[in-house]
Amino acid sequence: MSNRRRSPCPIACTLDIIGDKWTLLVIRDMVLGRSHYKEFLESPEGIATNILADRLVKLVDAGLVEKYPSDIVPGRDAYRLTKKGETLRPILKSIVRWGLKNVDGTYIGLSPR
Amino acid sequence: MSNRRRSPCPIACTLDIIGDKWTLLVIRDMVLGRSHYKEFLESPEGIATNILADRLVKLVDAGLVEKYPSDIVPGRDAYRLTKKGETLRPILKSIVRWGLKNVDGTYIGLSPR
Repeated sequence: MSNRRRSPCPIACTLDIIGDKWTLLVIRDMVLGRSHYKEFLESPEGIATNILADRLVKLVDAGLVEKYPSDIVPGRDAYRLTKKGETLRPILKSIVRWGLKNVDGTYIGLSPR
Repeated sequence: MSNRRRSPCPIACTLDIIGDKWTLLVIRDMVLGRSHYKEFLESPEGIATNILADRLVKLVDAGLVEKYPSDIVPGRDAYRLTKKGETLRPILKSIVRWGLKNVDGTYIGLSPR
């Protein structure tokens, strides 16, 4: 997300975009069909409003997410993955698999909307 | 890494361990055969000594990395992936693939030792 690239390494550059504790949780929520600010805030991890706002701006800037007028709440914005954002799914999947296998007590608790 | 789990979500719990800009770069270095503190510091991203020290402690605590006496530099510690740490490879691989495809100008520059 930053303009200063740490190296040309694909891992470093990808972590510059998604390497934090929250970004991929917002992506997860969108994969599960959540699209409104309020819905992201309701996820069990309790993301703070300022962190959520920051990550949404960065994700839009990175071309991974797009804002559109909500068709449920008039006058509100909603967010969804772009085609590029959808390509993050294999990363999410590898992380889900790893977590389920290696972190005791994890389970798929959030259901799609 | 923290004792406070944000949710039982496998993504959230995995990000609690590897969700930052540096941890997976240290893992990458170990996958590429680097094992000494000095070698990690020499990677092109320029990890700071305090961040490196912090991440190594956390990775050892999480059972992903183990410390062993260096067989090259007498009296020094070296670090390597445990069997559990090796299971992070598919996550790394999915990130490498995504970066190469989606971030312009990235390439595999570090060679294995």
